[in-house]
Amino acid sequence: MIVLIFWLEEFMDLCINGIYLPFNFKIMSTNVMEAVKVTENTAIMKGLVYQGPGEKKWMDVPKPKILAPTDAVVKILKTTICGTDLHILKGDVPTVTKGRVLGHEGVGIIEEIGTAVNNFKKGDHVLISCITSCGKCEYCKKQMYSHCEDGGWILGHLIDGTQAGFVRIPHADNSLYKIPAGANEEAMVMLSDILPTGHEIGVINGTVKPGDTIAIIGAGPIGMSALLTAQFYSPSKIIMVDMDENRLAVAKTFGATHTINPTKDDVAKLIAKETKDGVDVAIEAVGIPQTFDICQEIIRPGGHIANVGVHGKSVDLQLQKLWIQNITITTGLVNTNTTPMLLKTVESNGISPEKLITHRFKFDQIMDAYEVFGNAAREKAIKVIIGD
Amino acid sequence: MIVLIFWLEEFMDLCINGIYLPFNFKIMSTNVMEAVKVTENTAIMKGLVYQGPGEKKWMDVPKPKILAPTDAVVKILKTTICGTDLHILKGDVPTVTKGRVLGHEGVGIIEEIGTAVNNFKKGDHVLISCITSCGKCEYCKKQMYSHCEDGGWILGHLIDGTQAGFVRIPHADNSLYKIPAGANEEAMVMLSDILPTGHEIGVINGTVKPGDTIAIIGAGPIGMSALLTAQFYSPSKIIMVDMDENRLAVAKTFGATHTINPTKDDVAKLIAKETKDGVDVAIEAVGIPQTFDICQEIIRPGGHIANVGVHGKSVDLQLQKLWIQNITITTGLVNTNTTPMLLKTVESNGISPEKLITHRFKFDQIMDAYEVFGNAAREKAIKVIIGD
Repeated sequence: MIVLIFWLEEFMDLCINGIYLPFNFKIMSTNVMEAVKVTENTAIMKGLVYQGPGEKKWMDVPKPKILAPTDAVVKILKTTICGTDLHILKGDVPTVTKGRVLGHEGVGIIEEIGTAVNNFKKGDHVLISCITSCGKCEYCKKQMYSHCEDGGWILGHLIDGTQAGFVRIPHADNSLYKIPAGANEEAMVMLSDILPTGHEIGVINGTVKPGDTIAIIGAGPIGMSALLTAQFYSPSKIIMVDMDENRLAVAKTFGATHTINPTKDDVAKLIAKETKDGVDVAIEAVGIPQTFDICQEIIRPGGHIANVGVHGKSVDLQLQKLWIQNITITTGLVNTNTTPMLLKTVESNGISPEKLITHRFKFDQIMDAYEVFGNAAREKAIKVIIGD
Repeated sequence: MIVLIFWLEEFMDLCINGIYLPFNFKIMSTNVMEAVKVTENTAIMKGLVYQGPGEKKWMDVPKPKILAPTDAVVKILKTTICGTDLHILKGDVPTVTKGRVLGHEGVGIIEEIGTAVNNFKKGDHVLISCITSCGKCEYCKKQMYSHCEDGGWILGHLIDGTQAGFVRIPHADNSLYKIPAGANEEAMVMLSDILPTGHEIGVINGTVKPGDTIAIIGAGPIGMSALLTAQFYSPSKIIMVDMDENRLAVAKTFGATHTINPTKDDVAKLIAKETKDGVDVAIEAVGIPQTFDICQEIIRPGGHIANVGVHGKSVDLQLQKLWIQNITITTGLVNTNTTPMLLKTVESNGISPEKLITHRFKFDQIMDAYEVFGNAAREKAIKVIIGD
């Protein structure tokens, strides 16, 4: 998922939570570990490099090389910044070490392929998935690519990422997608992470169905992605909840039927008035106890709470009330298993994720892009694009 | 569900939690409210009557009458005691008022039917469902009978129950089942509540599949029911967790492949050794924070935690670890929508729920039955049967 939704600036400290890696996050096989040594002949590129907590630099780094036969090297055309990159910069993700090139989203052109890559050739226009998948482990065979035993979320985390001139993509055949001719490249960048995250972990896990009343708590990039993709399944009411009036106004233009600002109104009371006995689906797209609590308050018997937010601390689950309510709660890191389907919907103009982009920067303005994205509420930013 | 699993005597205070009714528990329509006044001509029967916290009495009460055309009056042949009855007696369920006849399980013979009852006639041998369902509200149409808008769990709660000579069953056509000729009557009593609860809220909600490794936390009547019904779906390993060695030994004879006593061994460590990275399904069948925590510790990525226990307080949900684990947590009161299916499996000898019965009493020994069931660990009791 690699998600962050701004819940207004005063909540930023709570919101930019640390990502605690679970017990099954393993050290990747040497297959995906990098061992590029700088020598006199090393090709150089620019990259946004993590320099330890609070520090980053747009600087010269070695251009990646093929390390395994299943690798591809991709020249980056466009990338973006994710809330998780802000987490990392705060020092909240200790598995990211100093010197790491950040970024796990982007589109590009295949520069070079390993000898075992079959689906792509040099010059192909590709979408980079935020999730790397080997395609042959137990989890990949269940389409749970997020838990791939030789992949998962590694880009800009355990190996160098996409905020650079080039990126090495392990297991390229399973971790890249061809971009259809004529497709909007900026829209494609939204398909690396946020659109499949909102769709899979919010809408599909929440089992949104025709006629349903759904609430999305948090109108940041992920909440907005859930809003856009929920409409595939024809819910009758989509209630958007956020403390930022600008985002609520944008949500209305994206298809929200109702908006609620919890600083002005009592969410549970308004939803009780608007529904028979609560919402069918509540999508948590912030990652703090307060927003999870809203979901617990507004869910109807038989309803689904789909947690999408990245949480930094535990929440108080009201089982003394909910044990009898026949509800379902789901969690998850995006699998990107619906990326091919989302590609088709973008191609047929069924959805226009480029509407989420509010700001554009050149590569050498990436430090400005971080400044704007890091102050999203003040800057009225949703997603930024970086590319030449 | 109306469940209680003993987690050893020292845990009894924690275990016998109050049932907090959720906001959508409504006062039933007059259709199901009782208005029997004792007059000179009132027929009398014996019933186990709640006399306020800590007090109960086997005493004369008015025999129930048909109050609505959809009612039936059933003569009780066999009934049992549920953990929920102990909750009520502790005063934990304030919606149960003084004078209420307890009990929501049993089998009997139809004594009288209302003019709108079509599926049954006087003399029919019937199984009483713990859940009453009108069959025509929104929830009934979704087979969520537990949330029936004119029913749900009302027997021995909002209207007089089955621990008596006779009981009035509202919406009889939807709330009773014909007992097949030659069926074991004691086995049928297990189908009123515990077997469908273990099956629906544990096994089906947990989506137990062939080859799965499952853990059942709590080897009381509901945990044992989950153990019996899980075997319909051919899991490869069933790990039973309880602090009571006697119950673990019984669980082995019922099909558990492994047992763990948390007072002797570290459950999470043993399960980590026995599995690749945790269990596919964890069924919580106790209802206290400690046992819910075990489920959170042992669940693998993509796994299901099926909460069956009746909780009296909130639990600390470890979302800072679980957000990324792609897990599903479910809760629920039994719908009894699988009762017809369970009836067939008992009829074909696919399952023998009468194995759960450890003690038998006559109706006039019901106070002794409560004494034994209230000290289940000491008495090595699982389920008791009361009947002449």
